[in-house]
Amino acid sequence: MTRGHRGIMVFVALVAIAAAGGRHAAAQSPSVAGDWQFAQDIHGNTLYRRLSIIINESTVSGTIGSESISGTVTGNKIHFTTRSEQASNEFDATLTNDVLSGSVVRTGRDDPKPDRYTWTARRLPAPRSGPAVRHEFVPKTFHRVFSASVEPVLRIWPGDSVHTTTVDAGGTDEKDVVRVLGGNPQTGPFFVETAMPGDVLAVTLNRLRLNRDWAISDDALMARAMDSGLAVKMKDVGKSVRWKLDRDRGVASPDVTGGKLQSFTIPLRPMLGCIALAPGFAQAPMPTGDSGPFGGNMDFNEIVEGTTVFLPVAQPGALLFVGDGHAAQGDGELNGNALETSMEVEFTVNLVRSKPLASPRVESPTHLMTIGLGGTLEDAMRRATSGMTQWLEQDYSLSPSEIAMVLGSSVEYTIGEVADRNVGVGAKLRKERLAPLKR
Amino acid sequence: MTRGHRGIMVFVALVAIAAAGGRHAAAQSPSVAGDWQFAQDIHGNTLYRRLSIIINESTVSGTIGSESISGTVTGNKIHFTTRSEQASNEFDATLTNDVLSGSVVRTGRDDPKPDRYTWTARRLPAPRSGPAVRHEFVPKTFHRVFSASVEPVLRIWPGDSVHTTTVDAGGTDEKDVVRVLGGNPQTGPFFVETAMPGDVLAVTLNRLRLNRDWAISDDALMARAMDSGLAVKMKDVGKSVRWKLDRDRGVASPDVTGGKLQSFTIPLRPMLGCIALAPGFAQAPMPTGDSGPFGGNMDFNEIVEGTTVFLPVAQPGALLFVGDGHAAQGDGELNGNALETSMEVEFTVNLVRSKPLASPRVESPTHLMTIGLGGTLEDAMRRATSGMTQWLEQDYSLSPSEIAMVLGSSVEYTIGEVADRNVGVGAKLRKERLAPLKR
Amino acid sequence: MTRGHRGIMVFVALVAIAAAGGRHAAAQSPSVAGDWQFAQDIHGNTLYRRLSIIINESTVSGTIGSESISGTVTGNKIHFTTRSEQASNEFDATLTNDVLSGSVVRTGRDDPKPDRYTWTARRLPAPRSGPAVRHEFVPKTFHRVFSASVEPVLRIWPGDSVHTTTVDAGGTDEKDVVRVLGGNPQTGPFFVETAMPGDVLAVTLNRLRLNRDWAISDDALMARAMDSGLAVKMKDVGKSVRWKLDRDRGVASPDVTGGKLQSFTIPLRPMLGCIALAPGFAQAPMPTGDSGPFGGNMDFNEIVEGTTVFLPVAQPGALLFVGDGHAAQGDGELNGNALETSMEVEFTVNLVRSKPLASPRVESPTHLMTIGLGGTLEDAMRRATSGMTQWLEQDYSLSPSEIAMVLGSSVEYTIGEVADRNVGVGAKLRKERLAPLKR
Amino acid sequence: MTRGHRGIMVFVALVAIAAAGGRHAAAQSPSVAGDWQFAQDIHGNTLYRRLSIIINESTVSGTIGSESISGTVTGNKIHFTTRSEQASNEFDATLTNDVLSGSVVRTGRDDPKPDRYTWTARRLPAPRSGPAVRHEFVPKTFHRVFSASVEPVLRIWPGDSVHTTTVDAGGTDEKDVVRVLGGNPQTGPFFVETAMPGDVLAVTLNRLRLNRDWAISDDALMARAMDSGLAVKMKDVGKSVRWKLDRDRGVASPDVTGGKLQSFTIPLRPMLGCIALAPGFAQAPMPTGDSGPFGGNMDFNEIVEGTTVFLPVAQPGALLFVGDGHAAQGDGELNGNALETSMEVEFTVNLVRSKPLASPRVESPTHLMTIGLGGTLEDAMRRATSGMTQWLEQDYSLSPSEIAMVLGSSVEYTIGEVADRNVGVGAKLRKERLAPLKR
Repeated sequence: MTRGHRGIMVFVALVAIAAAGGRHAAAQSPSVAGDWQFAQDIHGNTLYRRLSIIINESTVSGTIGSESISGTVTGNKIHFTTRSEQASNEFDATLTNDVLSGSVVRTGRDDPKPDRYTWTARRLPAPRSGPAVRHEFVPKTFHRVFSASVEPVLRIWPGDSVHTTTVDAGGTDEKDVVRVLGGNPQTGPFFVETAMPGDVLAVTLNRLRLNRDWAISDDALMARAMDSGLAVKMKDVGKSVRWKLDRDRGVASPDVTGGKLQSFTIPLRPMLGCIALAPGFAQAPMPTGDSGPFGGNMDFNEIVEGTTVFLPVAQPGALLFVGDGHAAQGDGELNGNALETSMEVEFTVNLVRSKPLASPRVESPTHLMTIGLGGTLEDAMRRATSGMTQWLEQDYSLSPSEIAMVLGSSVEYTIGEVADRNVGVGAKLRKERLAPLKR
Repeated sequence: MTRGHRGIMVFVALVAIAAAGGRHAAAQSPSVAGDWQFAQDIHGNTLYRRLSIIINESTVSGTIGSESISGTVTGNKIHFTTRSEQASNEFDATLTNDVLSGSVVRTGRDDPKPDRYTWTARRLPAPRSGPAVRHEFVPKTFHRVFSASVEPVLRIWPGDSVHTTTVDAGGTDEKDVVRVLGGNPQTGPFFVETAMPGDVLAVTLNRLRLNRDWAISDDALMARAMDSGLAVKMKDVGKSVRWKLDRDRGVASPDVTGGKLQSFTIPLRPMLGCIALAPGFAQAPMPTGDSGPFGGNMDFNEIVEGTTVFLPVAQPGALLFVGDGHAAQGDGELNGNALETSMEVEFTVNLVRSKPLASPRVESPTHLMTIGLGGTLEDAMRRATSGMTQWLEQDYSLSPSEIAMVLGSSVEYTIGEVADRNVGVGAKLRKERLAPLKR
Repeated sequence: MTRGHRGIMVFVALVAIAAAGGRHAAAQSPSVAGDWQFAQDIHGNTLYRRLSIIINESTVSGTIGSESISGTVTGNKIHFTTRSEQASNEFDATLTNDVLSGSVVRTGRDDPKPDRYTWTARRLPAPRSGPAVRHEFVPKTFHRVFSASVEPVLRIWPGDSVHTTTVDAGGTDEKDVVRVLGGNPQTGPFFVETAMPGDVLAVTLNRLRLNRDWAISDDALMARAMDSGLAVKMKDVGKSVRWKLDRDRGVASPDVTGGKLQSFTIPLRPMLGCIALAPGFAQAPMPTGDSGPFGGNMDFNEIVEGTTVFLPVAQPGALLFVGDGHAAQGDGELNGNALETSMEVEFTVNLVRSKPLASPRVESPTHLMTIGLGGTLEDAMRRATSGMTQWLEQDYSLSPSEIAMVLGSSVEYTIGEVADRNVGVGAKLRKERLAPLKR
Repeated sequence: MTRGHRGIMVFVALVAIAAAGGRHAAAQSPSVAGDWQFAQDIHGNTLYRRLSIIINESTVSGTIGSESISGTVTGNKIHFTTRSEQASNEFDATLTNDVLSGSVVRTGRDDPKPDRYTWTARRLPAPRSGPAVRHEFVPKTFHRVFSASVEPVLRIWPGDSVHTTTVDAGGTDEKDVVRVLGGNPQTGPFFVETAMPGDVLAVTLNRLRLNRDWAISDDALMARAMDSGLAVKMKDVGKSVRWKLDRDRGVASPDVTGGKLQSFTIPLRPMLGCIALAPGFAQAPMPTGDSGPFGGNMDFNEIVEGTTVFLPVAQPGALLFVGDGHAAQGDGELNGNALETSMEVEFTVNLVRSKPLASPRVESPTHLMTIGLGGTLEDAMRRATSGMTQWLEQDYSLSPSEIAMVLGSSVEYTIGEVADRNVGVGAKLRKERLAPLKR
């Protein structure tokens, strides 16, 4: 849907540049130059970073993660250093069988005693030369945590698409079969080749369609949305409610008899409640009802067909999860459940190398959107605002003063959800207003 | 604009019924029956309520405020009682020169000692028989508090319209003359005949137009919208910014030289930052930067031409204030100032008798909206939700379960403002979704 | 009680220095030099500041408010200037009959058009030469707003004491006579000679004693303290509860029959719920249920006999209000009412000239305390923390790093109240920990 | 330390009763009667509950979790039912080799289609007959998640004590050896025999002592504690700070040279930042920086030697974790780190069968305390208040009205921490005030 619109073109271009850079470096020094998946052992945990080595004669330059390196190479031995205000790190390694292995000594500014760690690095694959692939994927297992410890179900390349399905939040599939315990079980994770921590994964939802004729919801209101008086008024509600999904007419209606909602219908607007990458270094598995900078159970009703979701990569391969489809959802997901249903999903992944991303982003044909997630609406709003500020700085080079003027005159806020541990606020800017600002 | 749409018709009908009721009652017993402006002295403060007396032979029934009365009338003496779980009140009075004067004794449930107060009541005017009037009003003074102690500038009737102007938030008028100290100085208050505490005033904004070619704003961001990192980033901004208003093209642009915003424009969308009634019994004057259930400085960017704002009447005559026009405003009013400008305003008032209203309401051609105001976004959201719940109960007779389903599937939230002591959240429902629900 | 403790000595010293400075300046140039009550008219509102003029030959230096002035004097004409990053101001005046009157032209950095205002200045009285006075004051009227528009009931000097009484929050005095409508009616305001905006008033509570044998409270819980489940559980409570105050034994007990609280007693700990100065320039009267940087209805149960409360002066004479005595109060004032009672009060005022104060402060024999007030506990906590930071900077010259270490290791927080529009958080530091830090 | 005080006696008594009941039941019908560890498979996850069966002839009564059962037994086959407003459950099983195995069919009120699950049950051990044991435990591994999937390190009985050590939050032990990656690594988990979901574990900290002479902290302030101005002021701090711990003098002092804190000392007050039980059914492992109703990283500085912590059991064996010792901590843990150090710990566990517990509780010699944990201070305060309400209902049988009066007059609040995802508020009541209330 958004294929060909400007945001995606930028990624494709960036990926192409990255790819060219990789090839160029490789040409100069086949032995050590190029991109590596660097893995440092820290008390039994593995810290991954992309190590990009450029060799000019015996001089080493390049980057590790977001830091610059400088050093020397002699035969199969390499030495390089990073320096920051906090600490300096000395890396030494030997290349054997195309694997670098060695150690790093970190000397902190305020720390009297240096720390020593071991590391290895394996070559990241060269960019794929062939055309993008559309994968048909039938899920067999579903996962209840976002975690790097879950084995990937499929390895794909930037540019590839995956056509698959998701079960509903309760674990039931399109054939009304319970496949797994509820709590937003996920399809995936999908391993994206060459993705490394510090990159951004762009996931374009080409297709997001209903694949059954009913959804499940309830008639409760989240405590967070109720003042004391409303809590007393609502004290006796809270039962499950089934909704009928009429895919032909494009509407949903509650499957109730009697009462005032006999002819109440709402338009279908299928969305993904969950889209996430595996969280980063040494983080505990995150339950699929939770969310964070890596995405997760954001329940943001703008994540619909035709949008692209941008998430920060924190693990090699990114490890993309999708699930928790909603046939439609009001702002806030006030019932705790939206119209929970199984879903047919097709998405395309693209990779932006080395770009800081404070909050999840969504781009629709009309809007730039950032999602702020936090324990309170104020925190969530601040993060959404901060995330949009970062976007305007990165892509439009606006000054703080200019950012304030654009946001003050043009930002739109919506309350994404108040149903989970994190609440979510969306900050939105119309792309047509930003178009005249020279990038 | 919304003239003739359904909401307004309801009020007109209600007012007509009320009028008929009043006349009918008057016919039966010209001496005491009818509607009165009841005024009770409570330690030097006056508590006003509407007293509606119905006489059947020597028996008294009717209402005082929202309570039922029952009693007897003998010659020019009346006695009646109200009873609630909390207290009983015994009222006695004598009619002299068409004024009731007497006393009331209140016996509280938990209070050993009854309290005695004096009261008087003056007849409320009979509904006007003639056609609605359009008043041309040129303001000479402007007020910096919402208060019943400010002398009304004009007395109007339900159904009447007023065409007037407002100065900008800084006190400057359409001719660039500073008329008053800044802080949202108001035009008004307008006294609406027969309006009494417990009623609802419906203010339809027929016309809301710019009357000058510039607005003033700034390039700060409200502390409430910034996390620590953003606060540090924004630490040096905060200057005034002038915007050009192009009324022909319908756009505004910042009047800056250099930088990235040379060709940045936003659509004009004139709105009223303030619309308020005087607060109620014994309340201190409220500064015009503040807000509450009575309205006030809500800075809600949906209060535009063509909408009707509903506010609870807390003082005889309602005492309507308008001011703080914005040429346009992003959600949240993040700069603290929107595009502040003077404005041409025309509004029509209508009265709904005796209707509880927990939060300000706005009706547009497409949406029902409630505004929640509170010290935090959570509180504001709860109040907006509670207010919408009340609307769905009152006008659609929905049960708690049905309300939960309608809100969960269909509510839209927006963050009105975070610039003032109270923040505001708007809850919105599309009228087309509610249309099939039988009223 | 705290007489003679260190904090007070500092003020006395500061006042003495200020007094000496004043006299010294006066000796050099009797005509214009010295301290003035400067009053600038801004669109009908009066902005007061202290103008301190030092004359050296024909050269003018000194301060107006917190800004430096420089200029010249020629005969009875004076000209001086202030400059900041935001604006420059040119002041001109003529001395006639010991009154300065003239104008000021303000040119803002971003403002094309200068503004012109008129001003006058009257000489502030010289410090009193005689001994401090103890005033016996019997209140006749009580006030329901904190406001500079309320006429002072007594003029006192720094160093003076006042012995008086307060009615309870409901307006009832020690003889069970209702004196005024409830809502925390106040005794005062007391005008403190020479106090000017920018100063700090130190109010030491020498005596705070019960003067009747009962208090009134209730059995509700504030909505803010209840989650949904608790709100449902508490839905039927909310009646008035009388407490017996046993002044001999020093305890209070609920006056209930039956139930589990027959022998429940709590220690008496009389406190002032309200202590306030009049709010500043062009501010609306503030209801006595509200609070802000000027103090007000803080309901902080550490404001007991023997403490000193520091408040920022915002009006000439400071205009001190006291009221809302509580025989005892739990943290948070969860019932909305504490043990509300009338009170005998004696306090001493002292003045600290020209000291910024972000939040109200309380000093007890053992603790420094700041009170943060805001719409949410987070905001209140931030303000209390910020206020304590300011105190540590001002009086202990600590660096940001040192402040962080002192607070992180030693701060104590308490929740003062959640019963009013502003909630309050107290930040406390033990004075014994700070004693070794060289001032 | 608190041995012999009243709370503990109650548990001992309760445990004794439970034990007696168990034995009695066992005597009647050795085959099926008694307490079982019931384990139901729900889509690959195991739900554990205590199943207590009482046999009277062929009639079955008793409980499963908090629900009553009724049914029949025939030979080695048992059938029983639970009924609630939400659903009914029919259980069938066969006893083979002292293991029950069978199925359960759940029919939900609103659910057209019953669900069927399998289950097994193993006999819970009979109460231990011998004396309590003091275990000496030297930890070899440390864990960075609270989870039922971590293998227990030791099996103990109610009444037993464990003497052990904890590493500091950064993973360093008493000999300055880094043992594990930082992030509050835990000692444990300890399996408590017979503990089952629905019980409460009481952990008395008999001994909590420093075992090295230094702690690590920093000089940052948590963003949550700073308003915008303070954030700007603090923008350049954030380095590690070492503290010296003087165990003889009982004080700590920052190990800094220069500046104002040369002679700044604070009293040592060793506390446990983390104490937790494994979270319940199908929950993801919880990182050791997080907290919840099960306890966790609460950073509550009242959890010191001599207190008893009560936590709700959610897994068979309770699975107790301890760690994150602080030599001392200010309220709020404003630096993010307190004075982090390794610790010597001795605790005793006791079990209260079948008692609902909404929030963690702490009992000291002087106070009852509940800890509320949530995303915002308001939520945390509400939960602490709600938790205290539950305590007063359960142990003092107070009515809602009485609870309101006790809390309003006597509750004390403290802000435990604002350093983690959940913030914590402590609600406290003095035991001496509650003593006269008949239990």
